[in-house]
Amino acid sequence: MIAHLPKKKLADVLSSIERIVPNRNSNPNLTLVRLELKDGHLYLSGSNLEIDLQAAIAVDTSDTGIWALPAQVFSQVVRALPGELVELSFEATELEIKSGSYDTKLQLIDAELPELTFPDAFAGAFDAKKFARGLEHVRYATAVAEYQAIFRGVRVEFSDRALRTIATDGFRLAYYHQEEPSGIDGAIVLPARSVDELVKLLESGEASLSLADNRLSVATGPYKLNVNLMEGNFPDYQRVIPSEFLVTITCDVKKLLDSVQRVAVMADRTANNRVDIFIADGAAQVTAEGTYGRAQEAIEVMQEGSESEIAVAYNADYLMNALKPVQGDVKLSFSGVTSPSLMTSVQDPSYLAMVVPLRAG
Amino acid sequence: MIAHLPKKKLADVLSSIERIVPNRNSNPNLTLVRLELKDGHLYLSGSNLEIDLQAAIAVDTSDTGIWALPAQVFSQVVRALPGELVELSFEATELEIKSGSYDTKLQLIDAELPELTFPDAFAGAFDAKKFARGLEHVRYATAVAEYQAIFRGVRVEFSDRALRTIATDGFRLAYYHQEEPSGIDGAIVLPARSVDELVKLLESGEASLSLADNRLSVATGPYKLNVNLMEGNFPDYQRVIPSEFLVTITCDVKKLLDSVQRVAVMADRTANNRVDIFIADGAAQVTAEGTYGRAQEAIEVMQEGSESEIAVAYNADYLMNALKPVQGDVKLSFSGVTSPSLMTSVQDPSYLAMVVPLRAG
Repeated sequence: MIAHLPKKKLADVLSSIERIVPNRNSNPNLTLVRLELKDGHLYLSGSNLEIDLQAAIAVDTSDTGIWALPAQVFSQVVRALPGELVELSFEATELEIKSGSYDTKLQLIDAELPELTFPDAFAGAFDAKKFARGLEHVRYATAVAEYQAIFRGVRVEFSDRALRTIATDGFRLAYYHQEEPSGIDGAIVLPARSVDELVKLLESGEASLSLADNRLSVATGPYKLNVNLMEGNFPDYQRVIPSEFLVTITCDVKKLLDSVQRVAVMADRTANNRVDIFIADGAAQVTAEGTYGRAQEAIEVMQEGSESEIAVAYNADYLMNALKPVQGDVKLSFSGVTSPSLMTSVQDPSYLAMVVPLRAG
Repeated sequence: MIAHLPKKKLADVLSSIERIVPNRNSNPNLTLVRLELKDGHLYLSGSNLEIDLQAAIAVDTSDTGIWALPAQVFSQVVRALPGELVELSFEATELEIKSGSYDTKLQLIDAELPELTFPDAFAGAFDAKKFARGLEHVRYATAVAEYQAIFRGVRVEFSDRALRTIATDGFRLAYYHQEEPSGIDGAIVLPARSVDELVKLLESGEASLSLADNRLSVATGPYKLNVNLMEGNFPDYQRVIPSEFLVTITCDVKKLLDSVQRVAVMADRTANNRVDIFIADGAAQVTAEGTYGRAQEAIEVMQEGSESEIAVAYNADYLMNALKPVQGDVKLSFSGVTSPSLMTSVQDPSYLAMVVPLRAG
């Protein structure tokens, strides 16, 4: 059985599968890629039990067959091929791979891998790039620690009006809202690691969507994937977003971010990486103090609000993470010294971030 | 005491010192940078006991003084500065650093660091870039294991006719010969780690050279450095370079390198990463076999010599390392199945590499 296919397509698809499939596992079958020739396509698939991934590439044969190969080695070989076209010849126990002057024989693995199943029809769809944007904008705010359970995922709210993505670790929150129907309904939580893989696969065009059996299924480009959902109750985040503010400032986000970054060099890593921000007279003064000394810097801001000044302290990393997705001007709204501050993008009202200040030291 | 100096110069010099000075050490003074204002210059210096490094930057003050700062923090602060000019104000216990809207106070460290000493006059000189090129071409062939002692360094031969650099680990050898006088005489061995730092500091212009007290002293750009020499007998490498060959081939080095790289994907890492090369009928066939299968590729070569064919095996990494410094065409000369093979660059006769083949498996 001989199939010809473009090297770049095969290499791209194998890179994606190689990323998901574990390199070592107590179940060696999990490290394999399943190949199936069917309906004029080569289907390649793999799973890490959190994500099922399948890719389809059109080939020039109507032959059929099912085989298994070590995902990592196959991917490495294909990536290194010299030519633009690859010839795959499936023999009894070997796969011969030819490309340009290169010729290799990979041992087929004698294992019966289960066929992954995907929905026959998808209920909804969303622009793939926009879906990725929503996930990327909030990913940073997920929790890292094992015990934080549901906080380690990204909540996605699908509805006939909008797509919303939310992440929080209890000390900060990120939120992205896009006013477009997704054709499906439901609120789910995706594990952060699966979100990272999903974002890499969402390139252009449409992403078809389906929710069933505690999984989100997505079809995008050459890929179909199932992502297992997280179980648990995501907190009522709307309730904690403040709506009344004492002081509000607007400024160029790059200027503020650069200042915080420079000053934070002196911040004390053992004390929450604390930076202090003091707003008064149309200026924001950023200060940090640590073992080696003290740094400060002031930038001009547009200031509004009922109070004439406010002093707040943050974990520098949390503040910088919240500012980084913003482009152009940022609006910072301070609700108090210990209550959450809001950051929004003036040019992109879809994005909102919240950071809880540090207690006065 | 106030000094002004260009941010970029100060940041560059501090990066070099930060690289050399240890980040942590049982002797905390070693983690510091010594600052001295003298003769209208700021002298910055640090040491790791293997390399002494000093840099000089012209400043706009004739004040004098000596201070100490943690090298890493000072470097980090300066790198992050917003402006193009830096103002350093030395006070009793603090150094105030101002640049643009940024203002920081770093605690000075109360430590008396020894003044590093460098030769008053340098006996010789060599083009800095060429000196770096000589070191870079052979660095890869140094040994890694602790017990290999003198093999862990690069031998440098200075004479009134040429500069030669040599490295070997007993299984391969690299050699670079430049027909230019260096003005000093002697054969030394520099530790590989010091070679890496030296190469980074050698940018352009001339490198002044001196040999004394078991140290090589170099002045290059804003830097002066002393590098401690290794002690021990470097083997008589000339004796092991073969001069008679059974087969010689010439080919485009990139083609050969790419083939070896592709085929080596299948090589067995637990068996010296072995690749086999078979030369016959004006072609080089590269083959590797491992747990997952077998790969082969053939490229055309220009073949000469008394024998009509030869089969040799190498560690793929050793072979690739030896070929990488070559640009254009490479000439491979095979002296036998178990005796060393020579690789030379057709366009740059300065370079020569030798690799000992693996024994037939």
